[in-house]
Amino acid sequence: MYHGAMEFFNVEHTDGKARAGVLKTAHSTIQTPVFMPVGTRGSVKSLSQHDLDELAPEIILGNTYHLYLRPGHELIEKVGDGLHGFMSWNKSILTDSGGFQVFSLSGLNKIMEEGVRFQSHLDGSYHLIGPEKSMEIQRALGSDIVMAFDDCPALPNTTEKIRDALERTIRWAKRCKDYELKPHQNLFGIVQGGLDLSLRVECLERLDEIGFPGMAIGGLSVGEKNDEMVELLTNFTPKMPAHKPRYLMGVGTPLDILNAVKTGVDMFDCVLPTRNARNGQVITSRGPLNIKNQQFKEDQGPLDPDCSCKVCKRYSRSYMRHLYTVGEYLAGQAITYHNIHFYLNMMREVRAAILSNKFDEYYENFYKSYKLGWKQ
Amino acid sequence: MYHGAMEFFNVEHTDGKARAGVLKTAHSTIQTPVFMPVGTRGSVKSLSQHDLDELAPEIILGNTYHLYLRPGHELIEKVGDGLHGFMSWNKSILTDSGGFQVFSLSGLNKIMEEGVRFQSHLDGSYHLIGPEKSMEIQRALGSDIVMAFDDCPALPNTTEKIRDALERTIRWAKRCKDYELKPHQNLFGIVQGGLDLSLRVECLERLDEIGFPGMAIGGLSVGEKNDEMVELLTNFTPKMPAHKPRYLMGVGTPLDILNAVKTGVDMFDCVLPTRNARNGQVITSRGPLNIKNQQFKEDQGPLDPDCSCKVCKRYSRSYMRHLYTVGEYLAGQAITYHNIHFYLNMMREVRAAILSNKFDEYYENFYKSYKLGWKQ
Repeated sequence: MYHGAMEFFNVEHTDGKARAGVLKTAHSTIQTPVFMPVGTRGSVKSLSQHDLDELAPEIILGNTYHLYLRPGHELIEKVGDGLHGFMSWNKSILTDSGGFQVFSLSGLNKIMEEGVRFQSHLDGSYHLIGPEKSMEIQRALGSDIVMAFDDCPALPNTTEKIRDALERTIRWAKRCKDYELKPHQNLFGIVQGGLDLSLRVECLERLDEIGFPGMAIGGLSVGEKNDEMVELLTNFTPKMPAHKPRYLMGVGTPLDILNAVKTGVDMFDCVLPTRNARNGQVITSRGPLNIKNQQFKEDQGPLDPDCSCKVCKRYSRSYMRHLYTVGEYLAGQAITYHNIHFYLNMMREVRAAILSNKFDEYYENFYKSYKLGWKQ
Repeated sequence: MYHGAMEFFNVEHTDGKARAGVLKTAHSTIQTPVFMPVGTRGSVKSLSQHDLDELAPEIILGNTYHLYLRPGHELIEKVGDGLHGFMSWNKSILTDSGGFQVFSLSGLNKIMEEGVRFQSHLDGSYHLIGPEKSMEIQRALGSDIVMAFDDCPALPNTTEKIRDALERTIRWAKRCKDYELKPHQNLFGIVQGGLDLSLRVECLERLDEIGFPGMAIGGLSVGEKNDEMVELLTNFTPKMPAHKPRYLMGVGTPLDILNAVKTGVDMFDCVLPTRNARNGQVITSRGPLNIKNQQFKEDQGPLDPDCSCKVCKRYSRSYMRHLYTVGEYLAGQAITYHNIHFYLNMMREVRAAILSNKFDEYYENFYKSYKLGWKQ
């Protein structure tokens, strides 16, 4: 049983509001703050599970909406006894609830009390995912961390809509809590409330009454300004239960993550390092680098001179630019590998900095370097 | 210097007409019969150089036509001191002459005595590649084995056209021979002559007078029937100089390769294992398997139960089918890895069989198993 908060998560050290913790699931021990690479359809795009073994994330993400549509959660349970077996990955997995994709990817969707009726983005077929269905799917997937099915409105939005989504999110969270998951699974609640601190706090308190071993901040990075997100987090994160992991969903750039760690967030996921890699964006110690640029045509240096990953040790920018330009698969594969290495390495450094009470120093140095760029 | 045939290549053992040899270049020692994975544009598609380190081919191929157009041979020489440095690959490389692609890929092309004038398939720009230009490009690429620029007519064709191409191939071969390559480079001649044995023998003898440390059989697998190719090889290969490596260009399926080894061929290349992988075709001990097929939907077994590669050890057919169906990159990557492993492993087994005078037995067993299929 991994539902007990004391056993499930422990904060080891704090530096200001930044926290270094340890999160234990049936599949791995996760040091926080942690970045979780996204494996939408049962694969972290362009990487193999052998690559993941090398990069060594302790937890990755799977998407309920995508896996429900293809190949279907029943198949995954039948063939692999869940996603771990199906994709041959024995560290932790977190699955989202499917709610976000139902809104952002599907065709016509209609929010009803029982759930969301939507058309598949693949073939237009009709489906309904509500709290129970989301739990059924995530139960079959066997993820270590299961997310409650929430209503996530885009920003900016009216107070009425935000309030409405908040109330529905709470009603749905109760129904998720009532659903029996597998013993090893941990259900996280998701706080909504837009940019309104009092709504956020209200949502948090009401979810906390229902009782979850971890709490996520949803509904950010959905259209609001970056400053607005940082302000909300600065005010809100410290109000979250200190003994539970805090997960900021879908965020973000390295600087977004550092800003959120500063407020006390423990967990992150984002498609940025993988998706942008396939568009030729290399995340480096001096900020993003567009490998397509003419300036790298004859550049014999590595993607990131400060990086120790096997991609940076082996290939030149010139070679990578060539591969990207002609459309060779290795470009996306290699840059993805590097970008994920960059994120995971950054989180390890962040954690070490927190443990030695040097988070602010790390933040300043990282920020200064990251803003330098490669153009001068 | 690696031009001396005695030093460059030695036949260690023969079993019937099948040969086990050793070919030495400045970059590696290659055991033959050998299959050379194709790295058209400086990358074996879907594989990383780290993957290649694991799969351990001693030689791979690069394509002159493609690398000339992008990124350009001058850049490769400038940045990487040749293709080895550019792509970070320190085993051997063979480059083709560009002739085949000039005919098969480019737009308008015109054969003249100085070479072939053609339009780039990328932007329609005009170029001329002849013997000297091909040598200039391959010199810059720094490949260990350089192919002479030949005229390769499609089959079937008129005797006049075949004779014409043969004469031009010989004139061009002389000009290639006159071009000064780098000391470590070895220039191979290419025998043309269609399906006409006497033309083939004539071409061979006249090329042999010019003098090359290795000899390739070109102009096969270009439209003729499989039986016709096997018959030509059966009669022709044994007439090739015994002390020089024999390279059958662009062939083929595992059975094609075994058939050619049986006649005494030493070297092979083909895009089949890489290209077909990306189309979902898995090469197995029981013949090709189409991972898209419904029958594999719930199949928990490995791609090839007889294979020991890391892909077969880790993933199920069901998972691979899912990845292929949804378009995940890992499908092509993993199947390519397996297919190349299959080819390289087969060649190692073939060589061991020859060394122990059991080639015919190996051939029979392989053939029987390969024809079984997965359908019954």
